[in-house]
Amino acid sequence: MNSSESIPFADRLADAVRRTHSVTCVGLDPRLDQLPESLQKLADSGAADAQAAAYSQFCCEIIDVVKDRVACVKPQAAFFEQLGPAGMVALGEVFRYASAAGLLVIGDAKRNDIGSTATAYAQAYLGAGETSPWGCDSLTVSPYLGRDSLEPFVEVCDRRAAGIFVLVKTSNPGGGLLQDRATDGQTVYERVAQLVTELNQDRIGQSGYGPVGAVVGATYPEQLAAMRKAMPHSWILIPGFGAQGGSAKDVLAGFDSDGSGAIVNNSRNLIFAHRRAPYAEKYGDRRWQDAVSEATDEMNEVLRQRFSR
Amino acid sequence: MNSSESIPFADRLADAVRRTHSVTCVGLDPRLDQLPESLQKLADSGAADAQAAAYSQFCCEIIDVVKDRVACVKPQAAFFEQLGPAGMVALGEVFRYASAAGLLVIGDAKRNDIGSTATAYAQAYLGAGETSPWGCDSLTVSPYLGRDSLEPFVEVCDRRAAGIFVLVKTSNPGGGLLQDRATDGQTVYERVAQLVTELNQDRIGQSGYGPVGAVVGATYPEQLAAMRKAMPHSWILIPGFGAQGGSAKDVLAGFDSDGSGAIVNNSRNLIFAHRRAPYAEKYGDRRWQDAVSEATDEMNEVLRQRFSR
Repeated sequence: MNSSESIPFADRLADAVRRTHSVTCVGLDPRLDQLPESLQKLADSGAADAQAAAYSQFCCEIIDVVKDRVACVKPQAAFFEQLGPAGMVALGEVFRYASAAGLLVIGDAKRNDIGSTATAYAQAYLGAGETSPWGCDSLTVSPYLGRDSLEPFVEVCDRRAAGIFVLVKTSNPGGGLLQDRATDGQTVYERVAQLVTELNQDRIGQSGYGPVGAVVGATYPEQLAAMRKAMPHSWILIPGFGAQGGSAKDVLAGFDSDGSGAIVNNSRNLIFAHRRAPYAEKYGDRRWQDAVSEATDEMNEVLRQRFSR
Repeated sequence: MNSSESIPFADRLADAVRRTHSVTCVGLDPRLDQLPESLQKLADSGAADAQAAAYSQFCCEIIDVVKDRVACVKPQAAFFEQLGPAGMVALGEVFRYASAAGLLVIGDAKRNDIGSTATAYAQAYLGAGETSPWGCDSLTVSPYLGRDSLEPFVEVCDRRAAGIFVLVKTSNPGGGLLQDRATDGQTVYERVAQLVTELNQDRIGQSGYGPVGAVVGATYPEQLAAMRKAMPHSWILIPGFGAQGGSAKDVLAGFDSDGSGAIVNNSRNLIFAHRRAPYAEKYGDRRWQDAVSEATDEMNEVLRQRFSR
């Protein structure tokens, strides 16, 4: 482990947000039918290897564009897994390329299991660069299996200066079915938030944040405000901005008074910016990288303006 | 899709259980330090490729031993993911080898996400042999994200004659933290069971079972009995037998009156049988395959005797 990696993830994220003046997290969710034409051609044979190569190239080019514009990227494992083993090889390439570019890497894989199996997932993913087999700084994790399924991840976080983001209140319309159920006035997601706070205890770094972060959707702004208060030492990863309907106003409540403590993910509206107005007209398919660049700058700017009000 | 694959998963599982007279599911959870010495040597370089080759060979040899003894195997993704991309290549080999051997393949990966991302996971894993990139007959799935995260899996089950096992009541001590929370007298796991039953509606096959199964741990026998009643059309995958403490008596309540409707997973006590009495003394490390064979026969027999009482 080199010296920069031994700084806790939460503190490295705070530094990166300060350095880039950006709370944008670029979601890397490649989908074959939305890739620029040149990359669709690369995948043309339909073979998994060719598609995986196109996904890898697409994501690495995006990383080149955003590396000095944002603090972090969040590759979505599902789209790579959809290509079978060849896709997983590409996913590994993307994780490492992002890390080498100086970005913090959040593996969005929503893993979990019990006991030593949870430890296997944690050891697989947590640890930047060469510190772990996959090389992520942090990983999204599901809480359904309870506290003893999260503790193995936290232990690996401690050893490898890594972080996790526990699903608390998700952005989808049906998320409330289980998450909103209340027992003695406390909902399931509030119980998870309490657990997140408990797990962070005695692990708070110089930034004021600990390794155990939370996922709270932009689509539930009131709950986001409550979760900010309930988890004062947790980074909040906010999905649901942009294509899912969350606005800059909606995400504000996720931040602390310094404008830190949260990152806002956007996938489709950034990485496929070349397919929507005004970028489609301005850059078209051929200059898709310029569309990514400008859409990322615009998102950064929209969020910065909100903070300065 | 060939004709056997177009028979729904639940019916194929019922046929396989009847044909093999076995409700044992062999969990393929390779761990380097517990492999037979010859395979540890194969992995000796410490390189991920070498370890992955050892895992693949270990699991494929087990498949050779158990293919006529049991209906299904359950490879655990986490232990393969722990080796990085090379491990995932090995996992794909194991899935296909098991399928080609005529076993039903349950991918234990506890995946889930929202919307089109859930669809990507479903398309990745669900579909035996060449029907999907990974080639599993079924997959374990986490319910925390709600109904709209499970529906994409069910749709793919319909198209590919596949199945899922939704985590309902897990076998670990801490599982109850969220799962046992009650709202108006209904616990979270009971709500998930209700959802499982709802999703199976209009999907019941000739066996009386539908594509949406459930995971209920052997370590909670009373809840297992209640869950059997609550999900009359769901296959129940019962972990926690053997090493985790569940006995043959504990799992009985998971079965229907015909002795069908459930499969009992055992991982460590079968695949690492060469490390425990009486097999260690009898076969030692060199004849580890004989230990697997005899331990599997013994588990089958113990469960058969229970049914005949």
